[in-house]
Amino acid sequence: MLNTNPFDDDKLHEECAVFGIFDHEEAAPLAALGLHALQHRGQEAAGIVSFDGKQFPAHRGIGLVGDIFGRKSVIDRLHGHAAIGHTRYSTTGEPHVRNVQPLFADLEFGGLAIAHNGNLTNALTMRQTLVQRGCIFQSTTDTEIIIHLMATRHGSVVERLTSTLHQIEGAYSLVIMTEDMMIGVRDPLGVRPLVLGRIGDAYILASESCAFDIIGATYVRDVEPGELIVASKDGLQSHFPFTRKRQRFCVFEYIYFSRPDSIVEGVSVYEARKQIGIELAREAPVEADVIVPIPDSGVPAAIGFSQGSETPFEYGIIRNHYVGRTFIEPSDEIRHLGVKLKQQRQPGLYHRQAGCPGR
Amino acid sequence: MLNTNPFDDDKLHEECAVFGIFDHEEAAPLAALGLHALQHRGQEAAGIVSFDGKQFPAHRGIGLVGDIFGRKSVIDRLHGHAAIGHTRYSTTGEPHVRNVQPLFADLEFGGLAIAHNGNLTNALTMRQTLVQRGCIFQSTTDTEIIIHLMATRHGSVVERLTSTLHQIEGAYSLVIMTEDMMIGVRDPLGVRPLVLGRIGDAYILASESCAFDIIGATYVRDVEPGELIVASKDGLQSHFPFTRKRQRFCVFEYIYFSRPDSIVEGVSVYEARKQIGIELAREAPVEADVIVPIPDSGVPAAIGFSQGSETPFEYGIIRNHYVGRTFIEPSDEIRHLGVKLKQQRQPGLYHRQAGCPGR
Amino acid sequence: MLNTNPFDDDKLHEECAVFGIFDHEEAAPLAALGLHALQHRGQEAAGIVSFDGKQFPAHRGIGLVGDIFGRKSVIDRLHGHAAIGHTRYSTTGEPHVRNVQPLFADLEFGGLAIAHNGNLTNALTMRQTLVQRGCIFQSTTDTEIIIHLMATRHGSVVERLTSTLHQIEGAYSLVIMTEDMMIGVRDPLGVRPLVLGRIGDAYILASESCAFDIIGATYVRDVEPGELIVASKDGLQSHFPFTRKRQRFCVFEYIYFSRPDSIVEGVSVYEARKQIGIELAREAPVEADVIVPIPDSGVPAAIGFSQGSETPFEYGIIRNHYVGRTFIEPSDEIRHLGVKLKQQRQPGLYHRQAGCPGR
Amino acid sequence: MLNTNPFDDDKLHEECAVFGIFDHEEAAPLAALGLHALQHRGQEAAGIVSFDGKQFPAHRGIGLVGDIFGRKSVIDRLHGHAAIGHTRYSTTGEPHVRNVQPLFADLEFGGLAIAHNGNLTNALTMRQTLVQRGCIFQSTTDTEIIIHLMATRHGSVVERLTSTLHQIEGAYSLVIMTEDMMIGVRDPLGVRPLVLGRIGDAYILASESCAFDIIGATYVRDVEPGELIVASKDGLQSHFPFTRKRQRFCVFEYIYFSRPDSIVEGVSVYEARKQIGIELAREAPVEADVIVPIPDSGVPAAIGFSQGSETPFEYGIIRNHYVGRTFIEPSDEIRHLGVKLKQQRQPGLYHRQAGCPGR
Repeated sequence: MLNTNPFDDDKLHEECAVFGIFDHEEAAPLAALGLHALQHRGQEAAGIVSFDGKQFPAHRGIGLVGDIFGRKSVIDRLHGHAAIGHTRYSTTGEPHVRNVQPLFADLEFGGLAIAHNGNLTNALTMRQTLVQRGCIFQSTTDTEIIIHLMATRHGSVVERLTSTLHQIEGAYSLVIMTEDMMIGVRDPLGVRPLVLGRIGDAYILASESCAFDIIGATYVRDVEPGELIVASKDGLQSHFPFTRKRQRFCVFEYIYFSRPDSIVEGVSVYEARKQIGIELAREAPVEADVIVPIPDSGVPAAIGFSQGSETPFEYGIIRNHYVGRTFIEPSDEIRHLGVKLKQQRQPGLYHRQAGCPGR
Repeated sequence: MLNTNPFDDDKLHEECAVFGIFDHEEAAPLAALGLHALQHRGQEAAGIVSFDGKQFPAHRGIGLVGDIFGRKSVIDRLHGHAAIGHTRYSTTGEPHVRNVQPLFADLEFGGLAIAHNGNLTNALTMRQTLVQRGCIFQSTTDTEIIIHLMATRHGSVVERLTSTLHQIEGAYSLVIMTEDMMIGVRDPLGVRPLVLGRIGDAYILASESCAFDIIGATYVRDVEPGELIVASKDGLQSHFPFTRKRQRFCVFEYIYFSRPDSIVEGVSVYEARKQIGIELAREAPVEADVIVPIPDSGVPAAIGFSQGSETPFEYGIIRNHYVGRTFIEPSDEIRHLGVKLKQQRQPGLYHRQAGCPGR
Repeated sequence: MLNTNPFDDDKLHEECAVFGIFDHEEAAPLAALGLHALQHRGQEAAGIVSFDGKQFPAHRGIGLVGDIFGRKSVIDRLHGHAAIGHTRYSTTGEPHVRNVQPLFADLEFGGLAIAHNGNLTNALTMRQTLVQRGCIFQSTTDTEIIIHLMATRHGSVVERLTSTLHQIEGAYSLVIMTEDMMIGVRDPLGVRPLVLGRIGDAYILASESCAFDIIGATYVRDVEPGELIVASKDGLQSHFPFTRKRQRFCVFEYIYFSRPDSIVEGVSVYEARKQIGIELAREAPVEADVIVPIPDSGVPAAIGFSQGSETPFEYGIIRNHYVGRTFIEPSDEIRHLGVKLKQQRQPGLYHRQAGCPGR
Repeated sequence: MLNTNPFDDDKLHEECAVFGIFDHEEAAPLAALGLHALQHRGQEAAGIVSFDGKQFPAHRGIGLVGDIFGRKSVIDRLHGHAAIGHTRYSTTGEPHVRNVQPLFADLEFGGLAIAHNGNLTNALTMRQTLVQRGCIFQSTTDTEIIIHLMATRHGSVVERLTSTLHQIEGAYSLVIMTEDMMIGVRDPLGVRPLVLGRIGDAYILASESCAFDIIGATYVRDVEPGELIVASKDGLQSHFPFTRKRQRFCVFEYIYFSRPDSIVEGVSVYEARKQIGIELAREAPVEADVIVPIPDSGVPAAIGFSQGSETPFEYGIIRNHYVGRTFIEPSDEIRHLGVKLKQQRQPGLYHRQAGCPGR
């Protein structure tokens, strides 16, 4: 075997975004806008697969959603009333288009597209077993394992998927599209978020609620840990194929991953971050003239600290918003330079910094 | 004549950026970084011309500085110890590379590169006169008029330039490079800014001081209205070829054009904006629960209003920082959509908005 | 199933070229030159996969070999001492890069690259059977069937391949590369050509001997119908896994497909075509002033006809050699225009035309 | 001055092609086809400028005509009833788009487009004089001198041109387009060819008559040495602004530059080349078994030699017609390799070679 562990290059792919929309005549444009609102969860690559009743047109690319899907000619090719999409976080190693999701395969029952946020913990063993059985892998993503498992199971799509889910372990928020339905799944521990929304009669699935706001959709509820939800022409069905477990939601979603205007697990991310600042001011008070945030992720916590400590809030560090892809290529060295290029201190201001750079 | 007024397509090109550096071994990379810090003054196009002792290598492109100059192979071609650059603001009409500055021409005395921020008010008449004399124009910029006037004058470069300046009217902050010198000029009314800095022994000219901070250079002083400043191997010379006039500095530089961390005409832009907010709270007080800025240009004024009115400051509108070029193409319709895509209101917050969208 | 017959788009892919080289330090550059000499067998797409001892770097593209592999940076990435390549003939339907050969897959025993000239007659049934077993197809080529069959067989590579060959029917000249060996196979009927050559200690396989001439290699012999030939560090091994059948070599190889300077099945193509012209002059003599060929495929037959009939040979139709890809795009309409663009009759010459246009 | 002689990089630009068409509703597509038929006179770059009654849309590119003008979207932009074009021969030095003809300039009387085949012998002196007067050059072509001279003359377009022609020396076949007319000029020595044709009511100018055949136009006559011919809505006017001189037509047009199916100065190029072969067989007879041409330029002479010496003609060297741009880049080293790649000797044939490789 050439690669003993083909997943080595995916250092941190917990932080991707998934999106799906079912039964809307502008499925692909809305998917592109939704992914654009979720861009903070992954800037390396993005893709959309739609279904037009016959074919599953797809487009994937390296770069930002706006660059990949900004041209009308690209969106126009993605016909149909259903579409799912994915954005991928920057990782070490060269990004390959073959790893850009949603993945697609032609199975016995027809086409299957899948987008995955999370990380399977038994991916390596599962892959080796499948290769020994004669399965041929096309990507190095652990998501492809789910497809091969579904291809070699029997029964309906939901039965194949349920059987598959019992064989995989780890974190997964999945959005799946077949010719008849859109499926959303959250792993039993509920590590990554997945929310359900509506726009008109159409159902939407997304990693965060901010993807609903941009397209004027309504937040319905979070998909629950261990829930498998099916949208089809018969409406919405909910399945709970697992024994209930204690949820282990990832706290970094509040601290760093999610957007401040999202509601995650019922709580506003902005409020959560502000409370962290208030609490920090209480637990670790300092004498200071001004509180200055590291823009942009540090702003809510700095406002909280400012209010909690009754110290003036000032904007001492200016972020350059025109940092393009070129200056923030995915290497450690450049990532470091990226921070320098994006932020400049305002002359004459001394401050305690609160927050994470570059978010 | 095909075009009665070839300048019609340049609706608002007051807001460009110029940059020049003389006698530094990394002239072009520093110019690229300086232009990157000045990106807010023009996102449509950018260019750099350097001088390596023999040739004037040049690179110009449509797009952002980071995209145009981000590749090492591009910067490496721009040899030499002197370089000038320009970023161009988005205008209506199709952008043409032939209009991207710095312009360059081979004159009798050698090469001449020029970058211009401003707008000549007698451009149309001057151009017609020159065409009748047999001058052939290659661009539709009014900047090219300055080159043709210099080409048909006599004497030294400074004499040709001085004679030329007496024939043009309007606003101009110019950075010019020849084989021997770098020249900075500000029109007698001082409409647009131009500042002088140093890094080591090298002299720098830039539209705003934030271009000095990014490369670790020191702000020396503003070029004065009506001043013509020459950097050469003999050091710095200052000329005042005009009768003194009352300055008419453009107030939009404080309100909108300049970056908050720049010092313009001796005043911090951040402080100026904050004072506007404080003054607004005094002149037009409101009963409110929270003060919410329109990010990013509205932040300092909102902080001022919050402090002046003793009302809590909250960050209710989240800006999407991954808006690429594609979603903000230079058409009125898309520009409008651009604002929608960049900003989303936080659910449940009602607020008085302070500031200009998208800055 | 979306596509009842996914091979419908491949109207005529008999006429492709395969090339392989084993144990030469410049494997990929020689493969590119060899494919270039075989360009007449397929102008739509081309690809090369090499093996460098660890990885199987690959490059595939739509277009001509010279355009796809002309840049040094492309060839330099294809490290290693073994390489196989393929050129693909223009077909109706949009060409997809995923269909461009050589195909590659990671199987249980390691990497496998395969290039195929020919057409399987039981492809549709085989594919359906494999999909029902859970095999996931990535291309619409019938060549991928061979890979899936090998993936689900057991034993050594040669054992898996032999077992696979007994399940497929039709025409195939295959060149296969694994980590240890290069394999050449010709179907039992010997429909398509495959020749063996040497350069230094390296073995070469190619569709026609003209690929040896361009790189200074020596023609050894034709691979025989039904022969499976293995080049490894242990030298050359020959297997005959089939019962002998009567050969059914495709006569169009002499008439049209092969290059006149190739030796095919031991006979010079030029001589074969010339003899056809001599025979035609004998069987169907005409009164004529001059014999004019349709360049270029008609030249040898016209020379034969001229010699056989003792009528002067004249070059009355001039071919334009600068026809680029754009004017001969793969649509019927344009293909027709392509002929018009490539050839112009010389004014004042009337002639009997011999030959096929554009070859 | 940076470049003492800016024309140094143009080693051999005698061999370009010009084309013009006046008063035809498909001017630009016909110009593209005409240039395609003239591709053998220049493969480095090509351009077309049309006039649509208001604007002079233009497109120029590096490469072959079919690649530059093959897309419908490109041709569709070149509106109008008049168009002129140019193909440029490969030269040493980096080709720059700014040097690709037709050149265009906005003069006092309106737009002027010009295409030039030939070489001015007093270009350097003329250019220096013009620069001293304040003229700004944009290209390094000597053709631009003609534009600057016309810009600074007075009177009608024909008067300005006539006055200009008396100041330049050397070889020139020019095709010029203004808003009202198309002009053809041949220098008094008649060094380069220029022919006049008609299609319907439209007038055509071209370097060779083969450009008429491809579009179904009729050859009318050669433009005479020293003739200035004007096509306008008033029909055709002929001027002879020079004293008659003895013609010095370039013999290489027959030997190498022109296409065999062109009629040049009233003589078929094919016949001229064949006569050279017959004459060679007479003057320098050899004992030989076969006569083999170097394709393609050598074919007519070899046929002549074969007929003159009564020795059989055989096609022993096969040319690879799929040599793309990449393998024949304009460097001496690659040009040499280009010949090797294009031609392969047929095994077992020994021959006396007649002809120039690669034509």
